[in-house]
Amino acid sequence: MFTGLSAFPLTPMNESGIDEEAFIRLIQRAADAKVDSISALGSTGSYAYLTREERKRAATFAVQHANGIPVMVGIGSLRTRDVLQFAEDAQEAGVSAVLLAPVSYQPLTEREVYSLYETVTRSLSIPLCVYDNPRVTHFTFRDELLGEIAQLPNIGSIKIPPVSSNHDEAKARVDQLRALIPSHVKIGISGDWSAAAGLNAGCDIWYSVLGGLYPEISLRITRAALTGSAEEALALSEQLEPLWELFRQHGGLRVIASAALRLGIGSNPNLPQPIQGLDEKARQQLDEVIQRLALQS
Amino acid sequence: MFTGLSAFPLTPMNESGIDEEAFIRLIQRAADAKVDSISALGSTGSYAYLTREERKRAATFAVQHANGIPVMVGIGSLRTRDVLQFAEDAQEAGVSAVLLAPVSYQPLTEREVYSLYETVTRSLSIPLCVYDNPRVTHFTFRDELLGEIAQLPNIGSIKIPPVSSNHDEAKARVDQLRALIPSHVKIGISGDWSAAAGLNAGCDIWYSVLGGLYPEISLRITRAALTGSAEEALALSEQLEPLWELFRQHGGLRVIASAALRLGIGSNPNLPQPIQGLDEKARQQLDEVIQRLALQS
Repeated sequence: MFTGLSAFPLTPMNESGIDEEAFIRLIQRAADAKVDSISALGSTGSYAYLTREERKRAATFAVQHANGIPVMVGIGSLRTRDVLQFAEDAQEAGVSAVLLAPVSYQPLTEREVYSLYETVTRSLSIPLCVYDNPRVTHFTFRDELLGEIAQLPNIGSIKIPPVSSNHDEAKARVDQLRALIPSHVKIGISGDWSAAAGLNAGCDIWYSVLGGLYPEISLRITRAALTGSAEEALALSEQLEPLWELFRQHGGLRVIASAALRLGIGSNPNLPQPIQGLDEKARQQLDEVIQRLALQS
Repeated sequence: MFTGLSAFPLTPMNESGIDEEAFIRLIQRAADAKVDSISALGSTGSYAYLTREERKRAATFAVQHANGIPVMVGIGSLRTRDVLQFAEDAQEAGVSAVLLAPVSYQPLTEREVYSLYETVTRSLSIPLCVYDNPRVTHFTFRDELLGEIAQLPNIGSIKIPPVSSNHDEAKARVDQLRALIPSHVKIGISGDWSAAAGLNAGCDIWYSVLGGLYPEISLRITRAALTGSAEEALALSEQLEPLWELFRQHGGLRVIASAALRLGIGSNPNLPQPIQGLDEKARQQLDEVIQRLALQS
């Protein structure tokens, strides 16, 4: 399942709980567009902000409405104890894979992060994607550690942070990691502005925030890159540069949450406080960008 | 209550829950030494890793066993919704103050952090200490933002990260913050190796990891600094340098957790997985340091 486009939908919510209707609409939207997989409860799905019950219900809805498309869910948490529980719940909900970041409060050591993956993979009967995102976890993986973790049973993929926009540098970075991991472990790119470059450099899958709301343009970029039309993928991505700039400036989550409201999916507020949507100025910029790009789906 | 030495005890725990007997022993130890306040459920108290019920019980035990010494507890969490709940529970448990860090998964904006403190202070009937610790929150306060937050009702103190070991630089840093906050808001120093320098530079209180296990030596440093014996405070702190080096290298939490076991308080493991205690080499170093310093209490 770790190939092509994996859509990371928002989990619209307010202080009372998840807006389940809006969440289901986002799952259906991705399923209708025939993305390759749906990663519910990623960072954009705000997994870290949800209770056990909320995660369980969201995972169940995602599987029910994905129309047979494989679903992955995030199971990250500060405590191994909770991660194991979330892993069990996710498997009961029928997901096809789980996504695990080394979420931290106290900075973690390499030994601690390895032991987390060792303990969790031992309990799993489905594949796990290692989620490398220092922006939210504040843990920076060395490639050697990723290599060791990738040898554990049930590791299916590694989700890496943005690569260089320089093709040779990006390719060297992906090749270096590839040399350290078993061939069945797939490499996925995140940081949407880096997706075309990452796929062109040999990544197998795009873990995509954009794909969670706008699956069609995301699929076009993915298909172009994975069928060898590297230039076309880059050109399509380049057109989205004004959107990528907003992503980098405000975080993909805030941008996509505002864009979902603009499409009439869910109601404002749709993020867990204290996180707020875009301010007025950024919202206007987003409006202009979306109109200019004629983004529909 | 925001003056002198505030002891931050460990919350010994394993995967089954809090070791309540060991926790109570640590509270009693601090109370017996007559520290000025006890900050249970700080970072060293692993608040971020506990459930609502666990936090509530720990706060209740801390108040019950503090022998009248004021107790502060940490109420930080990723969601404002949960912080408000923890604030209510803490007040019901009878604490005298709460400690709030802008805990983050998604990086927070200044607007979001301000709104968190605005919302929470509005709900409180006891003072709040603003917890500035980028190492664990990954949010860096500008002094101007601290100044704005300090104007909110019920703000009692600001807990700042380590200051320079150069006295003039440390004093300039404390003076700069002092100029931006109301006079009733007290400044507290954290990063134990920086405590003597911070108190000498004009901080009112030491928020102390060491004081949670070794209150007596911590009180001697505090009393020296706050009664004008700046050199004596520095000399006492300097003697502890081998311990501070372990703190900086492994984090105060791991060091103090190992030291507690060495004193026969609680049993191994005593930290929430995936966090582990010191490895064998560091544990030997700690043993040597403690013997050399003849640390008892």
